[in-house]
Amino acid sequence: MDHYPGSIKTLIRHLARLPGIGQKTAERLAMHILQQPADEAHQLARSIVEMKKKLRLCSRCFALSDDALCRICNDSARDAHLICVVEQPADMASIEKSGAFRGRYHILGGVISPMDGIGPDDLKIAELLDRIETEAVGEIILATGTNVEGESTAAYIAGVLASTAVKVTRIASGVPMGGDLKYVDQVTLKRAMESRHGI
Amino acid sequence: MDHYPGSIKTLIRHLARLPGIGQKTAERLAMHILQQPADEAHQLARSIVEMKKKLRLCSRCFALSDDALCRICNDSARDAHLICVVEQPADMASIEKSGAFRGRYHILGGVISPMDGIGPDDLKIAELLDRIETEAVGEIILATGTNVEGESTAAYIAGVLASTAVKVTRIASGVPMGGDLKYVDQVTLKRAMESRHGI
Repeated sequence: MDHYPGSIKTLIRHLARLPGIGQKTAERLAMHILQQPADEAHQLARSIVEMKKKLRLCSRCFALSDDALCRICNDSARDAHLICVVEQPADMASIEKSGAFRGRYHILGGVISPMDGIGPDDLKIAELLDRIETEAVGEIILATGTNVEGESTAAYIAGVLASTAVKVTRIASGVPMGGDLKYVDQVTLKRAMESRHGI
Repeated sequence: MDHYPGSIKTLIRHLARLPGIGQKTAERLAMHILQQPADEAHQLARSIVEMKKKLRLCSRCFALSDDALCRICNDSARDAHLICVVEQPADMASIEKSGAFRGRYHILGGVISPMDGIGPDDLKIAELLDRIETEAVGEIILATGTNVEGESTAAYIAGVLASTAVKVTRIASGVPMGGDLKYVDQVTLKRAMESRHGI
């Protein structure tokens, strides 16, 4: 690091703070930015500042949005009877990519995790109950992760919603598609066996 | 990509242009920058702009520098009799990290590569000859790469310098340290055999 001038050293240090970017990768990226036309490098810098300035959370579903309501909440073609509850905006992006869901979302902003000091009150669960009261919701699909925190968060929300008239479902878990059984872990196989269904 | 608001989509697109950063990594980086404190994200953006503005090439050796002369050219403790010729600034950084060299550098800015339309005149070879005339240089160490282009660039420079009084050497090539012979490629092994020396 001492072998670079100060300005590039500063850039390398900031790049190396990004997740999955080590010292060597940061150096390579900095060298690339150095050789880019000034215009392109400035666009990158500007897009960081713009994004931090513009981006906020949708006031209804807490998805990432440039406006008060996100694109999906604004889209009248989406099925307002279905709400898919996910942990993070990236989870919503994954489901959208799959094209398997035409309803709306509710982003919790995390999972219940006592180890990290995150309880139900730190998530957007009260806001979900508000939506059930004010919107014509027919079904809540719990699509939190299938790890311990995701499972217990789904169980907690299912418990809270038990007193309401709304139908609550959980996404299926089992062997991933294209999966070779010998590479699938035992917990997943056990779950797949238990959840077997007629064909 | 369509599942993100415009401002984050722009950032993802710019990040994905960096080398070794694919679509998924760009998304993960953008999500991280989104969750960073605004201050940190601004520092990253600013360090890009600053670096593009400040950084130039040392007027003597063409290393990256924030000033007219780079740190090494300015350092009177470095041995001015030795010049190590490398292809790129990153090569110089690697040699500096090894701590094996206390002389000065000359950065060619590339290699002779007819396939890419790069000839000797596109490199800083004339400037190297100028330095030999004006500085008290005792030895030129050719440390270009050991691939075809690096080897032929070294051979070309050695030919040009043959008419001068300066001593010209080439860095050794052979089996890397800690290398297991069974994993070393045949060209390297052949070279290591040919360059064997008494112990």
